[in-house]
Amino acid sequence: MDRRSFLTKAALGGATAAAATTLAAPMYAQGNRTLTLVTTWGRGLAGVHDSAQRCADMITALTDGQLTVDLKAAGELVGAFEVFDAVTSGQADMYHGADYYFVGQHPAYAFFTAVPFGMTAQELANWYYHNGGMELHDELGQIFGIKSFLAGNTGAQGGGWFRKEITGPEDFQGLKFRMPGLGGLALGKMGASVQNIPGSEVYQALSSGAIDGTEWIGPWADEKLGLQEITKIYYPAGFHEPGAGLSLATNRDVFESLTPVQQKIIEIVSGEGHQWNLAQFLTQNGAALSRLQAAGVRTMEFPDTVWDAFGAASQAVHDENMGDEIYKKVYDSAMTSMKSSSSWLKISDGTYTAQRDRVLG
Amino acid sequence: MDRRSFLTKAALGGATAAAATTLAAPMYAQGNRTLTLVTTWGRGLAGVHDSAQRCADMITALTDGQLTVDLKAAGELVGAFEVFDAVTSGQADMYHGADYYFVGQHPAYAFFTAVPFGMTAQELANWYYHNGGMELHDELGQIFGIKSFLAGNTGAQGGGWFRKEITGPEDFQGLKFRMPGLGGLALGKMGASVQNIPGSEVYQALSSGAIDGTEWIGPWADEKLGLQEITKIYYPAGFHEPGAGLSLATNRDVFESLTPVQQKIIEIVSGEGHQWNLAQFLTQNGAALSRLQAAGVRTMEFPDTVWDAFGAASQAVHDENMGDEIYKKVYDSAMTSMKSSSSWLKISDGTYTAQRDRVLG
Repeated sequence: MDRRSFLTKAALGGATAAAATTLAAPMYAQGNRTLTLVTTWGRGLAGVHDSAQRCADMITALTDGQLTVDLKAAGELVGAFEVFDAVTSGQADMYHGADYYFVGQHPAYAFFTAVPFGMTAQELANWYYHNGGMELHDELGQIFGIKSFLAGNTGAQGGGWFRKEITGPEDFQGLKFRMPGLGGLALGKMGASVQNIPGSEVYQALSSGAIDGTEWIGPWADEKLGLQEITKIYYPAGFHEPGAGLSLATNRDVFESLTPVQQKIIEIVSGEGHQWNLAQFLTQNGAALSRLQAAGVRTMEFPDTVWDAFGAASQAVHDENMGDEIYKKVYDSAMTSMKSSSSWLKISDGTYTAQRDRVLG
Repeated sequence: MDRRSFLTKAALGGATAAAATTLAAPMYAQGNRTLTLVTTWGRGLAGVHDSAQRCADMITALTDGQLTVDLKAAGELVGAFEVFDAVTSGQADMYHGADYYFVGQHPAYAFFTAVPFGMTAQELANWYYHNGGMELHDELGQIFGIKSFLAGNTGAQGGGWFRKEITGPEDFQGLKFRMPGLGGLALGKMGASVQNIPGSEVYQALSSGAIDGTEWIGPWADEKLGLQEITKIYYPAGFHEPGAGLSLATNRDVFESLTPVQQKIIEIVSGEGHQWNLAQFLTQNGAALSRLQAAGVRTMEFPDTVWDAFGAASQAVHDENMGDEIYKKVYDSAMTSMKSSSSWLKISDGTYTAQRDRVLG
């Protein structure tokens, strides 16, 4: 990214937000308030809209009517990818979305959703809640005038739907594929023509041939889109989003105008929402996987040569961003935490589940 | 268990609780209240006391002073294993503990901590929040007059500390070993002399030779107890508690006397606490593991013959309880959910982490 344009944008965001506060603060101090929550999700999109709606409902419930969170799905107030600017400018009070949609605002936002060859959902939680992740999310938020918390997680996202089997890295050459974030940039390095398309438009893009293949989330959400009607070739494991966090971000001046109890309620509701949503996706994915398999979907695995190419392309994308001081700081923090907590997970959970599979057959 | 004594105890608990309400309800309706929380944890026990204290603090914070939760650690009001009876009888308002300590009250309580060859922490969350687990926890609670929520998790517990290397299942013959819950019963079937000892007494029991070996939790909590000073032989993976949930239970009449908002706060704080505590243990375990290894602790793996014996003994323990209708219902629900959600986890997270290990080396 252009460092100068980023700094200008950040300064501008700060000024706009400050202006909004001056006008709004007196009103905020009195009685009950309604907060407008915009989202990157079309109304009803399985799992992700649910996560946003649950955050809204729980904040409303736990504040006993002091705060009413009014959810506007993608397109109802602003478009899916416009929610960040809507909240930093004060047009909306909060957004719920995947922060890697905002790598244009700052590439380090990718870490609060997922980065290629990065953390699983559990490793992300470990880092976020106990190894510095939340503090770094806040540091980024101070630049842009928002206060963010992880508030949902899809779990590991599927490698995606393809019209033809993938036999080697050369199959990505010229492939028109939907993938957001740094994973999309990595696929680009492998020769793919990568597009970012909101969830609501994925089915149409794939069925019309505008794209050759796509990832969306996982068996449950993908089945709801109907992708299995278009092709039966599905790769469950992917490199690009090993545990995709979703964020709830509040305009920082709005957040600071709330009472300490209301602020804490937003934080705790977000944390609980992260777990609730992850468990929702994983539960529903298990059930959807067997339905999809029964309907003739073939679950495939990328060959090692493709994984090797994913790894090299991912590292190239990370390396390109290392000149940015904040990106490097977040990368180092996340990767150090991942290595440490995965060392234990591998020899405890990993060994246990392997033995359970072996013994129970 | 003796089915008649269980029913008598349940009926008695209900009567006691009902009497407590009649006296207490009018007081409850007025102003701010203090709730007494007893725990199965000695004050300061790493991770588990932290989990209880965080629940107490968050309920106090989010209710803005309406409820103050006053934590009494094990021994401060009642002993570690007396908290269940203290809360069902109305002597205390809430307990925080591992529900498998209460398999004497009902064996199905084991599922809300962990059962041998059962669910990992993530599989437990999937089942609990989205596949019927929470409802079954509540069904058990109705029998005893408590309202329970999962509120913490240690992750997969280590196989434990031994004075001699384990080379086959015969090494458990006559071994004096500390292990609670159904896992302990399974080890008993392998010939071990199994004891249940509260955490605060484990170090003394092992160092004095009262026991030959022990599991406690994992690298971090075990290191805090100082078990590495006694022996250097450690098995990170175990069969007995693949993801140990901790519960926050409230006397049911007390719970029902709370406002709906206060009730919801207890539920959401518990859920957030489950994730926070699990991430805490996993983060700290990663760091403690490298310290222990640097201090000369040898991390070992049980041979397949031992895992086979663990599997057979675990199934025998489950089978013995299948005559109990509730146990069977909870077992069937948990195992069905585990199989379904693990089918997806295995080919998404499992394949991803294996490839990440391979590619990153």
